[in-house]
Amino acid sequence: MRVLGVDPGSRFMGFGVVEEKRGRLAHVGHGVIKGDPALPLSDRLRDLHGALTAALVKYRPDAVAVEGVFTFRNARSALVLGHARGVALLAASQAGLSVFEYAPAKVKKAVGAGGADGKDAVARMVRTFLELEASALERADASDALAVALCHLNHGRAAVPAASASGKKRKGAAALLADRLAPAYRRPEAT
Amino acid sequence: MRVLGVDPGSRFMGFGVVEEKRGRLAHVGHGVIKGDPALPLSDRLRDLHGALTAALVKYRPDAVAVEGVFTFRNARSALVLGHARGVALLAASQAGLSVFEYAPAKVKKAVGAGGADGKDAVARMVRTFLELEASALERADASDALAVALCHLNHGRAAVPAASASGKKRKGAAALLADRLAPAYRRPEAT
Repeated sequence: MRVLGVDPGSRFMGFGVVEEKRGRLAHVGHGVIKGDPALPLSDRLRDLHGALTAALVKYRPDAVAVEGVFTFRNARSALVLGHARGVALLAASQAGLSVFEYAPAKVKKAVGAGGADGKDAVARMVRTFLELEASALERADASDALAVALCHLNHGRAAVPAASASGKKRKGAAALLADRLAPAYRRPEAT
Repeated sequence: MRVLGVDPGSRFMGFGVVEEKRGRLAHVGHGVIKGDPALPLSDRLRDLHGALTAALVKYRPDAVAVEGVFTFRNARSALVLGHARGVALLAASQAGLSVFEYAPAKVKKAVGAGGADGKDAVARMVRTFLELEASALERADASDALAVALCHLNHGRAAVPAASASGKKRKGAAALLADRLAPAYRRPEAT
């Protein structure tokens, strides 16, 4: 099972590919697609869509995972994020893939980070999980994308596609990846 | 000059095509693309993108016009609107077209409706301008799309693509379409 996670944005769109084979996780690839801020928004979206489609063709994942959005700085930034997110969901669907959505807290938990942990902590846990060098993840967009891919590998068996009629209730998810694969990396609840 | 206006939404995406030839306006076509609410959002976006691309191929406009978004019910609805809007902008860019954005007040003014006028008034003015039967525009999404296409035909000569580096300042726009082409249809300022 191979999952491509996406962290969409109109300036930077991160993606990360993780594979699970016989209970072992392997980092397959990741990248950050940069939108040229000098271009009109429509042309930037075209470039992001093209580059993400190329990544889907290159890595041939079985599913796409994306973080759900539940809190917003403001409506204007929600609109802008929506543009990039729509294009990412479209690319997945055009590749014939289902998109799975996870709450930010679930994504953090899947890599053993706590609710109050920031992007740095998530990046550190992702690197530990996937045995990556510190220099491998130059931007948080890529580590966030890898984290949501890891989250889907944890929940994937019981998950249903995002925003479908029955998508709101997920049946009992598998045990946490953190428990199953790398208990030593879990942070104590009390910290 | 032929313009395709879009009124994006993830449930209903309206489009309308208007042509100006030697100072005369003609309605070319319009439609409302329906997203199937039973589908996952990503697949709904794929269907909307496919249908809008088909309309762009069929009508071969010279430009695409869309209403700018400046007020929001809430951040959640802004995010959802952003998804559909991003897919519409993408389709335009993939067709090699520039996208022009107009403030809602400008769109209303272009068809001779006032700031306080609702969707019904806009639909009525659009029908009058384009000599359409009342039954021709079954949903407001299509008349809003025709209105923004008319708006671009009014401002188009001086306009620059939406959200480009220099897009924020528009040089003196051409005289209002209402003044130039159909003064009788303009409503008195005082009503």
